[in-house]
Amino acid sequence: MSSEPTNDRREEPAPAAHPDRRLSRRHLLLGGAAAGVGAAGAIGVDLVAKAGLGGSAAPAVPAVALVSGTEVVPFFGVHQAGVDTEPQSRATFVALNLLPGVDRAALRRMMRILTDDAARLTQGEAALADSEPELAVVPARLTVTFGFGPDLVTVAGGAAPGWLRPLPAFTIDRLQPEWNDGDLLLQIAADDPMTVAHATRMLLKDLRSFAVVRWVQSGFRRAAGSEKPGATMRNLFGQVDGTANPAVGTADFDALVWGRAGNPGWLAGGTGFVLRRISMNLDKWDGLDRSGRESTMGRTLANGAPLTGKRERDEPDFEATTALGFPVIPEFSHLRRARSEDRSQRIHRRGYNYDEAPSGTGVSNSGLLFACFQTDVDAQFVPIQTRLDTLDLLNQWTTPIGSAVFAIPPGCASDGYIGDTLF
Amino acid sequence: MSSEPTNDRREEPAPAAHPDRRLSRRHLLLGGAAAGVGAAGAIGVDLVAKAGLGGSAAPAVPAVALVSGTEVVPFFGVHQAGVDTEPQSRATFVALNLLPGVDRAALRRMMRILTDDAARLTQGEAALADSEPELAVVPARLTVTFGFGPDLVTVAGGAAPGWLRPLPAFTIDRLQPEWNDGDLLLQIAADDPMTVAHATRMLLKDLRSFAVVRWVQSGFRRAAGSEKPGATMRNLFGQVDGTANPAVGTADFDALVWGRAGNPGWLAGGTGFVLRRISMNLDKWDGLDRSGRESTMGRTLANGAPLTGKRERDEPDFEATTALGFPVIPEFSHLRRARSEDRSQRIHRRGYNYDEAPSGTGVSNSGLLFACFQTDVDAQFVPIQTRLDTLDLLNQWTTPIGSAVFAIPPGCASDGYIGDTLF
Ligand code: HEM
Ligand code: HEM
Repeated sequence: MSSEPTNDRREEPAPAAHPDRRLSRRHLLLGGAAAGVGAAGAIGVDLVAKAGLGGSAAPAVPAVALVSGTEVVPFFGVHQAGVDTEPQSRATFVALNLLPGVDRAALRRMMRILTDDAARLTQGEAALADSEPELAVVPARLTVTFGFGPDLVTVAGGAAPGWLRPLPAFTIDRLQPEWNDGDLLLQIAADDPMTVAHATRMLLKDLRSFAVVRWVQSGFRRAAGSEKPGATMRNLFGQVDGTANPAVGTADFDALVWGRAGNPGWLAGGTGFVLRRISMNLDKWDGLDRSGRESTMGRTLANGAPLTGKRERDEPDFEATTALGFPVIPEFSHLRRARSEDRSQRIHRRGYNYDEAPSGTGVSNSGLLFACFQTDVDAQFVPIQTRLDTLDLLNQWTTPIGSAVFAIPPGCASDGYIGDTLF
Repeated sequence: MSSEPTNDRREEPAPAAHPDRRLSRRHLLLGGAAAGVGAAGAIGVDLVAKAGLGGSAAPAVPAVALVSGTEVVPFFGVHQAGVDTEPQSRATFVALNLLPGVDRAALRRMMRILTDDAARLTQGEAALADSEPELAVVPARLTVTFGFGPDLVTVAGGAAPGWLRPLPAFTIDRLQPEWNDGDLLLQIAADDPMTVAHATRMLLKDLRSFAVVRWVQSGFRRAAGSEKPGATMRNLFGQVDGTANPAVGTADFDALVWGRAGNPGWLAGGTGFVLRRISMNLDKWDGLDRSGRESTMGRTLANGAPLTGKRERDEPDFEATTALGFPVIPEFSHLRRARSEDRSQRIHRRGYNYDEAPSGTGVSNSGLLFACFQTDVDAQFVPIQTRLDTLDLLNQWTTPIGSAVFAIPPGCASDGYIGDTLF
C-alpha cells in the first residue's frame, strides 16, 4: 500500500483567513502577463507509474498520464478570458438577480470582490474567504467571465447598448421563464468538473449579500485529452458543431467580437453574449436516416465537411446541383440558412452540450447551451436567428426553451476590477 | 485556417444498420484479453501543436496535451469492470423498473442486447443500433456495470441473496422515494462526459421495450490528468475521501469484494452494491472552523493524514491522547466510528461528488453519491452504517436522501452475456 501514490506531496495552502479584499501585491506584480503554472509545485508535475498493482484482474490505470490540471489562463488583460479561450471541457453558466437595495456603491464592492476571487481561483490559488482551499489547487484552465444584464447597467448609472434586452420573440421559441434573462452572468469554465464546482460555489457565496441565483445551466464537451486540441466539438446529434467560427486571433475575429460598433464607451474591449437553451429531441432525430440528417445540416456527419466538399473546412459550394437539378446543399439546410451573404452578420459560437436526467418515460433530456459572442447582438445574432426562425429544417428537432442576453465588460488591469469602466 | 486541426482524419464508422445482435466474431476472437487501444486509429494519437494562432490576446491552448481518450478497459472477464477499475472522472448511475410482462425470456434477451452494447461501446466501437456512431469513438476508459434488484432476480427465477432488499431504516435517513431502489442498475463511468452521455443514451434506447427509467444520478471526480493517477479523491467538503479502501489486486480486496460468503451460486465472481445519495450541507459546514472539521473526521484536511500521523496512509493511533487526556482522534469522529475492529466489516468505496443547480435562495445542492461494493451487504455495509447512525459527528452536516441495493453479477466470457449464470 505504501507504493501507491497519495496526497502526501501536497502542501497545505494557507488557511484563507485574511480579511483584506484588496488585490494582492503578487497580482500587481504578475499583472496581465501569463502567470505561468499556478499550482504545479503544490501537486507535483511528475508522472507517476502506478506500479505493484498485480493480481489477476489487472486494474485499468492509464498507461500514459499527464498532469494537465496545472494549466492556467491569465486573468487580467484587455479582454475578459473565456471568450477567445479554447473552450474548456466543462462550463457552468449562472444568472443572478440583484437584491433590492443593491446600489451603485454596492455593485462596485461586489465586482471588486468577484474580481479578486476570480483572479485567484483562475491561477490555482484559494480565494480570500475560501473555506475549502484544498479544492482550489487545480486551475485546469479555469476562466470566470462576467456579464451584465440591463438592470445592472441601469443601477450602475451607465448607458446600456440598444441590444441589451430580451431578444425579440421568435415563432420557434417555447421559452420557459426559469431559463431566461438575469442581472449578472457568471460563465465558469474549466477542464475539470471539480474546479468548476468549487469556483462556482466560492463566487456564489461571496454574492450572497448582493444577489440571488436565478438559474444555473451546466454543459460539457469532450474531456481535455480525449481529442486532439482544437478539434471541433460534436453535439449530441453527433454533428461536428463549431466549424464556421471566426478564427481567434485574426482581425476578422477582433472585428466581430471585440469591435466597437455603437456600443457605449464602457464596453470598449468587451462584447455581447447570448445564451439560448435549445432542447434537442434525440428520439425524433433517431427516426431520421443519415442522408436526411446530412441534408438537414448541409454537412456530413462523418467529419462535418459541406455536402459539396471532402474536408471539414472546405468552403461549401451553394451553386452545386444534383443530377435532378436540386441544390446539393438544400435551401432548407441549417448551413445555408445560418450563413449570410453579409459577412458582418457573423458570431463566435462557444456552446456546450447538456444532458439532464429524463423525466417520466423519457430516455433523454438533452440539448445545446448555445452560447455565442458578438459585438452587436441586434446586428449580428438577431438576423441569423430570424432567418432560422423563418426556415431551417433543423427546427423540426430543436426547440429554444431559454434565452438570455448580457453585456460582457472588458477585462481589467491587475489594479482594477471587472466593470471598472462602468462604475 | 487550414493549419488548424480538424476532424478530417476521422474515419467514418460504418453506419450501424446490421440487425444481428449476436456477439460478433471480432469479440469472440479478442475475448477477455485486453483488447488494446480501440479507437486510436480513428482519432490519431499524435500530438498536435496548435500553431499560427498569434494575436495579442494569446488564446489559452494547453502547452502539452495528450490524447488519452483512447484508453480502453477490457469488458469480458471473470468480474465485471467498473468495480476494481481505477475510478474514472465521471459516472452516471441509472436505475430502471422492469415493464409489466417482462419475463425470464425477455430478461435474457435484454441482457444479451445490453452486453453486446457495452462490449462494443467500452472498446470505442459503435453499438449495433447506434444512430450516432461518431460519438462512440472515444472510449476514455468507459465501463458499464450492471446490477440486479430483488424483483429482477425473482422474475429470472433465481435465488436472491438475503441482503438484496432495501436497507434497514436508519434514524439519520430522510429518504426521498425518487432516489430509492430499482430493478436494474447501470453504472456508466468514463473519463469523458460525452462518452458517458452517449453510452447512457444508447443503453437506455435499447432498454425501451424492457424497462423505464426510475432515477438517474450523475457525479464527478477530478478530470483525468488533473492529478496524479491514483491520488485519492476529495469530496466537496474538501476532505480526502477514499484513503482506507482495500487495495485492488490484494487477497484482502478479493475476499471483501469478490468473496462468496452465503451468496447464491449465480453470484460467484459478482458482488454487492450500495448507493446512498447523501446530501452535504456545505453552508453549514462552512460555519465550522478547520480544527472542528478535522476533529469531526479524525483526519487532516491538508492531506488526509490521521490526526495522530503525518502522511495520508499512516495508521491512526486510537490510543493517543491530548495533554488534557482526551483522545486525539475523538470518539465521535467519522474515522473512529466507520472503522470496525472486525476486519471483515469493510467495504470498497467508489463514490462520486454531485453538484446540482440549487433551488430557491440556496447556494448549493451538493453531496456524495456514496457508492460501495462488498460481498455481503448485511455483514459488511450495514454494521458500519448502523454505527454511524448511532454516533458520528459528521451526521450534523450530511443527510442520506436516497438508498439502493443491487447484486452485481459476475463478468462473462466473450461468448456469454452478463447475467448468464442467473438465467
Ligand atoms: C440545437 C440547435 C443547433 C444545432 C444542433 C446547431 C448545429 C450546427 C451545426 C452542426 C453547424 C455546422 C457546423 C458549424 O459551422 O458549426 C452549425 C452552423 C451554424 N449555426 Fe447552428 N446549430 C443550432 C442552433 C443555432 C442557432 C440558434 C444559431 C444562431 C441563431 C446558429 C448559428 C449557426 C451559424 C452562424 C453557423 C455557421 C454557418 C456558416 O457556415 O456560416 N445555430 N450549427
Ligand atoms: C457524505 C457522507 C460521507 C462523507 C463526506 C464521508 C467522508 C469520509 C472521509 C473523508 C473518510 C476518511 C478518509 C478515507 O478513509 O476515505 C471516510 C472514511 C470512511 N467512511 Fe465515510 N463519508 C461519508 C459517508 C459514509 C458512509 C455512509 C459510510 C458507510 C456506511 C462510510 C464509511 C466509511 C469508511 C468505512 C471509512 C474508512 C474508515 C477507516 O477504516 O479508516 N462513510 N469517510
